[in-house]
Amino acid sequence: MRIVLGLEYCGVGFCGWQSQLQGCGVQDALAAAVSIIAGEKISVIAAGRTDTGVHAALQVVHFDTTANRPLTAWVRGVNSHLPAGVAVLWAREVGEDFHARFAATHRGYRYVLLNHPVRPAINHGLIGWYHRPLDAAAMNLAAAHLIGQHDFSAFRAAACQAKSPVKELRLAHVERRGDYLFCDFRADGFLHHMVRNLMGCLVQVGAGSQPPEWLHEILAGRDRTLAAPTFDGAGLYLTHIRYPAHFGLPETSDRWLYA
Amino acid sequence: MRIVLGLEYCGVGFCGWQSQLQGCGVQDALAAAVSIIAGEKISVIAAGRTDTGVHAALQVVHFDTTANRPLTAWVRGVNSHLPAGVAVLWAREVGEDFHARFAATHRGYRYVLLNHPVRPAINHGLIGWYHRPLDAAAMNLAAAHLIGQHDFSAFRAAACQAKSPVKELRLAHVERRGDYLFCDFRADGFLHHMVRNLMGCLVQVGAGSQPPEWLHEILAGRDRTLAAPTFDGAGLYLTHIRYPAHFGLPETSDRWLYA
Repeated sequence: MRIVLGLEYCGVGFCGWQSQLQGCGVQDALAAAVSIIAGEKISVIAAGRTDTGVHAALQVVHFDTTANRPLTAWVRGVNSHLPAGVAVLWAREVGEDFHARFAATHRGYRYVLLNHPVRPAINHGLIGWYHRPLDAAAMNLAAAHLIGQHDFSAFRAAACQAKSPVKELRLAHVERRGDYLFCDFRADGFLHHMVRNLMGCLVQVGAGSQPPEWLHEILAGRDRTLAAPTFDGAGLYLTHIRYPAHFGLPETSDRWLYA
Repeated sequence: MRIVLGLEYCGVGFCGWQSQLQGCGVQDALAAAVSIIAGEKISVIAAGRTDTGVHAALQVVHFDTTANRPLTAWVRGVNSHLPAGVAVLWAREVGEDFHARFAATHRGYRYVLLNHPVRPAINHGLIGWYHRPLDAAAMNLAAAHLIGQHDFSAFRAAACQAKSPVKELRLAHVERRGDYLFCDFRADGFLHHMVRNLMGCLVQVGAGSQPPEWLHEILAGRDRTLAAPTFDGAGLYLTHIRYPAHFGLPETSDRWLYA
């Protein structure tokens, strides 16, 4: 049978989602814990890979098993074998037409940025930081140039394995709350480092180093070398994954503190 | 001259505020960094000692030095020598009538508690957790019994060095926001483990194991052994320190994410 899990994790201490020979991926930790409960070797497949240091308020994962366990075992049992930075939020049984990666129609990320002269201490590793004042209104003007279906090659890492650089960005919005900026991005999919590269450019606009129209130029130029450097992964959270409604899965986590 | 600093820190990785032979106290890290900038050995004195794993959105510290530095050096310079979990927020020069500990007239703590069947992952170490549903209204009824000047011996750790167990609690309030409880406590001072011991009892009331009136009984009995066990320090933050107005110091931090 096919089981789907909702997962929350802290990217600190992991080398990203993907399994590595050294076993430092979140995928390694989850596969090991699920295998213990299943009593057989299990492979897990996620909706999206996250980079080193990037977090997930909601990651969705599926696996196949011959083990027949109550759904609570896939939550409480697996959690008892996971490190402190990873937790299963819920488990459902799904049909074999479900695939965590290929069935996902939309994904969303939130970047949490402290905009203050002094670097973060309490939440170091969990939030990004920029020391000079940022103009959220200018960042939103810039972000508006990105909405729609475009070739996002200008924001694509060299190592990106996506078949096409064309994605449809449906939301790119910056909201200021006190000394924090909450920056939301939703699309049918994201290229490697795409959100961090978008953040790098938006921060340059927010700081006044570039005008909002610069984002249009960068996008149209499709040249990664003209865009801003990749922004720190510390403040980045995978927050939304949408599947066709008939699967009946939660699209987001309602328990996230930075929601 | 006497310098006062506003400090933010994450308690994870420190054995509390107080200096230890092994150098694992936040006080050790701060004294070392300040001493580098001062070019002389500096001792630092804090408004309140925090336990292992307890955080500070605002801790206030003073020290004396013969070094004449611009105030920015006591912020940016010191920060460049502090570990990632500690940051100086501001620095002021004060007269010798100021004392970070003895001049403080009020202190405040906030406990951030995740109330959800699944333990925290993203913020593990930064928030407390209770798995069964908690009734915040019942916790507030219980907390009301604590307000005022009382002998708080029932909530005092055996190792407490305070001269008197009598404190005046001016605020004890629980607010639910989604799956989180924010529990605020303000007093002229706190005994060792007092907030964590209060939290332990309030959680028993919230879970329905004890009626709200139980807090009155426990308080009146002045017997630590009858109260609930000390609650986890992970969700506890020092948030407020008030000094007489003429010192002109900030009472709280406006950049804290859990405010």
